[in-house]
Amino acid sequence: MTSKDYYADSYAHFGIHEEMLKDEVRTLSYRNAICNNPHLFKGKTVLDVGCGTGILCMFAAKAGAKKVIGVDMSNIIVQARQIVEANGFKDTIHLVKGKLEEVELPLAPGEKVDVIISEWMGYFLLYESMLDTVLAARDKYLAPGGVMMPDTASLYLSAIEDQEYREEKIGFWDDVYGFDYSCIKEIALREPLVDTVELKSVVCDPCLVKHINLLTVTKEELTFKDSFKLNVTRNDYIHAFLGWFDVSFDACHKPVKFSTGPHSRYTHWKQTVFYVPEMMTVSAGESISGTLSCAPNAKNNRDLDIVFEYELDGSQPIKAKAEFQM
Amino acid sequence: MTSKDYYADSYAHFGIHEEMLKDEVRTLSYRNAICNNPHLFKGKTVLDVGCGTGILCMFAAKAGAKKVIGVDMSNIIVQARQIVEANGFKDTIHLVKGKLEEVELPLAPGEKVDVIISEWMGYFLLYESMLDTVLAARDKYLAPGGVMMPDTASLYLSAIEDQEYREEKIGFWDDVYGFDYSCIKEIALREPLVDTVELKSVVCDPCLVKHINLLTVTKEELTFKDSFKLNVTRNDYIHAFLGWFDVSFDACHKPVKFSTGPHSRYTHWKQTVFYVPEMMTVSAGESISGTLSCAPNAKNNRDLDIVFEYELDGSQPIKAKAEFQM
Repeated sequence: MTSKDYYADSYAHFGIHEEMLKDEVRTLSYRNAICNNPHLFKGKTVLDVGCGTGILCMFAAKAGAKKVIGVDMSNIIVQARQIVEANGFKDTIHLVKGKLEEVELPLAPGEKVDVIISEWMGYFLLYESMLDTVLAARDKYLAPGGVMMPDTASLYLSAIEDQEYREEKIGFWDDVYGFDYSCIKEIALREPLVDTVELKSVVCDPCLVKHINLLTVTKEELTFKDSFKLNVTRNDYIHAFLGWFDVSFDACHKPVKFSTGPHSRYTHWKQTVFYVPEMMTVSAGESISGTLSCAPNAKNNRDLDIVFEYELDGSQPIKAKAEFQM
Repeated sequence: MTSKDYYADSYAHFGIHEEMLKDEVRTLSYRNAICNNPHLFKGKTVLDVGCGTGILCMFAAKAGAKKVIGVDMSNIIVQARQIVEANGFKDTIHLVKGKLEEVELPLAPGEKVDVIISEWMGYFLLYESMLDTVLAARDKYLAPGGVMMPDTASLYLSAIEDQEYREEKIGFWDDVYGFDYSCIKEIALREPLVDTVELKSVVCDPCLVKHINLLTVTKEELTFKDSFKLNVTRNDYIHAFLGWFDVSFDACHKPVKFSTGPHSRYTHWKQTVFYVPEMMTVSAGESISGTLSCAPNAKNNRDLDIVFEYELDGSQPIKAKAEFQM
């Protein structure tokens, strides 16, 4: 028995919100972006997409917003209402339970919002992310010249030496108390691993593969195939590609940004590890060129199909393809 | 976003089975109980209730069982079939997908099984446990004089000093970035915390509150109100009751047992912490007397209603009641 099946409506359970609230890189970045920029909120109407416990709504209210609308489909909205009332924001913050695409917002006919705030990011930026919903909100409710917070997100790749942990997570299935579990090894290899990676295991310079401008990106552009080139910084072995993201709030007086990369402070997003079927032996100065494809899974569009096609032009060249689903 | 909502059919995901298989206290105890006692398995028919990846089925087959039937309602059974075949047990081990109460087992009319093996234990022994199902299997399929593995389980209580962690888990909600989240604090207080506890924080002798004989216990007896007396071993403060369980395989030639208590090696069950609303100031020699009630929740019978009614007869007496749901 494990905690994995602990909760049905998992976002209704405060444990998830506890983890997110205690992620100070995340929560303080939003607080700084909102509370240090009252000129963007004073007297304005604000929409929070996926408001959870209402923390961002309350930041916006404190920053001087005239009206804040928070939308969430989870039952956490019940606690959010109590929290908003307990903190004296009952008249400013309006909480709506339901799917943003379906609910009726407390806005006059044709009324738009000045600012959309949302903490929509998932693992590897796009896994189970609410970005679709945020874009739908932008297209339907954001006033011309309105502000998105955050307004940019960037997806990065690198590669890591990770023999020891690969043994523990993948090699384990070769011999389970004397039994052959290789059919599970194949499943494990297809599944990205969300975990923290030490900077010292990173053997390539980071490479930006996808930059998203929240003001202009379309839902279609979230299905993409982009190229990358990873420059190897030392003689080592590569067991996995590594992915992470940065987000920034450029509309602020002084831009606020945070990274979820291995060079940065811990966040609950950690990093995402993609073990390749065959280890690569690399030398400083060599490079791995390839493409990263991301697309919602055809069967379950909350899932993500991720494909790496790559080529190591080195002393021990490799041309390969690695497919993942998360 | 978090891993809590990572998987729908959570037991279909190998990650849960990885955690259970890598729990060596758990898996090696079952292996020793089965593989070191071939006299109980040679030529016998064995039923594994909730077989998961089939590891216990394969132990039983290795121990000489003539026929092993594994039942599991999760899709992990798909991998279990591949594993059983890959390890050459296709003819001995028969895997059935479905609810044990509903499926048809590959047994001749009136045929019974000689041994029932099952790893059914949940957090605090009974949380989301499959014990009901194991008892149904026993009553329907176990031959007279048949063996249950394990055949006893014992639930223990103690109490701990835990100010620091209580602050982090409960006190946190008093001030969340300057906001009052006390409505969530109330929910957090009602919910037992599954976590590892250091032995040095235990301030009372362990007390056995419930002993279960798997050969004779009835489903009704799993709803109980039993008394306990905790003897305080040192001057300290008590912030929480602590619960854990032991199981044993007494049918073995040499009894096999393991404990999930704070004095024992780590298991994935950890221990269960029940924070009391009001801290108790206790002195060596004092004692806390009370009753522990456990019952399936009326609305959701997978949930557990747990009530502590207790009295500290000490220099600073307390009489209180603490209600939990997990």
